[in-house]
Amino acid sequence: MPVQTLASLIGYEFRNPDLLRQALTHRSHSAVHNERLEFLGDSVLNCIVATLLYERFPQLPEGELSRLRASLVNQKNLFETGRRIELGAHLLLGDGEIKTGGARRPSIVADALEALIGAIYLDGGFDATRGAVQHLLGPAIDVADPRTAGKDAKTLLQELLQARRMPVPQYSVIATTGEAHQQCFRVECAIPELNIRTEGEGTSRRSAEQAAARRAYDLGSRM
Amino acid sequence: MPVQTLASLIGYEFRNPDLLRQALTHRSHSAVHNERLEFLGDSVLNCIVATLLYERFPQLPEGELSRLRASLVNQKNLFETGRRIELGAHLLLGDGEIKTGGARRPSIVADALEALIGAIYLDGGFDATRGAVQHLLGPAIDVADPRTAGKDAKTLLQELLQARRMPVPQYSVIATTGEAHQQCFRVECAIPELNIRTEGEGTSRRSAEQAAARRAYDLGSRM
Repeated sequence: MPVQTLASLIGYEFRNPDLLRQALTHRSHSAVHNERLEFLGDSVLNCIVATLLYERFPQLPEGELSRLRASLVNQKNLFETGRRIELGAHLLLGDGEIKTGGARRPSIVADALEALIGAIYLDGGFDATRGAVQHLLGPAIDVADPRTAGKDAKTLLQELLQARRMPVPQYSVIATTGEAHQQCFRVECAIPELNIRTEGEGTSRRSAEQAAARRAYDLGSRM
Repeated sequence: MPVQTLASLIGYEFRNPDLLRQALTHRSHSAVHNERLEFLGDSVLNCIVATLLYERFPQLPEGELSRLRASLVNQKNLFETGRRIELGAHLLLGDGEIKTGGARRPSIVADALEALIGAIYLDGGFDATRGAVQHLLGPAIDVADPRTAGKDAKTLLQELLQARRMPVPQYSVIATTGEAHQQCFRVECAIPELNIRTEGEGTSRRSAEQAAARRAYDLGSRM
């Protein structure tokens, strides 16, 4: 993919291409790598997302703003954003990392995205970076919801039921398969009052419960 | 102290005095308080200090930059900076906080300083805030030293002696006074090779050792 396409996907064109190159360089590739830029980018990104949330939610208390930001600026979200702009295709990796699929590894892609933001900041200044972050994360910020951000599915489901004065959901393991150390759990989540019965799978009982709760929440919140 | 004096001490004059007032308002005083501004200020401050350190130490690895920043942006340092500009005299506190000396409490003063930085950012933008942070924390950043920042005295002392191929210092409790739960320890730190013998006091053995090590390090590093 040509760098020009990347520029249009991130909404920013570099004056100094060396900075872009450094942002895309993993430490396995060469001595001039992207870790210092990542340090800078992380702090600029947190500052800009704080600003955008502060503006969008003029009444939200500090603790909620903080939680909302953490739900947006994290490895999972940055990895997904990086994948959307096909950042992996531009990364400069060492041979070992190339062979083991480093270009698709969440930590490498998320870190490179932060480094990219740090490079934009050095190349174009704070306001240009704000524009790029808005371009990259704006859609996620637009749908960010203080009521649900950062809460796990079981907590959300319980709060939903409490608000309707209903009893807590019932979780039960309905199957375990696989050897020890590689077990798979299947859990059912039941809410008789809403006639909801969902199932979830996971490598732990807890993750299976979360999966079942997520589905029950999706159903319950629409009723 | 007139607000004009504060303006010259922080190196910034507000266009919108309401923002300054909000930054100085503790939650015990009124519903429109400084906590949202503190959230914003914390992130802007971290971003600006990251930038200043990135520029001042062009070769320093990411982990060291991070540690150095943490040694500058923390409650202790922010409190000292707030005290220097006499921020406490301008705070708006509830009656209870006034009576219990809230204007001198480290957490209240440090939080208000962050809120002040957030207010400058909203009032004058990023570049103006950078100027104010440079004015407020520049001297501390100028003397920041990656070799010592964030390390405790015992670690520093041990590294100093290792570098000179000397054995580790000897710590011994030479007195304990006071009742249980309110004990005071006096500890000696001895480095026979340098003919150094220092004492330190603290409410725990560990803190007394640190105090003794700090004095021994100050002596030893000048030899």
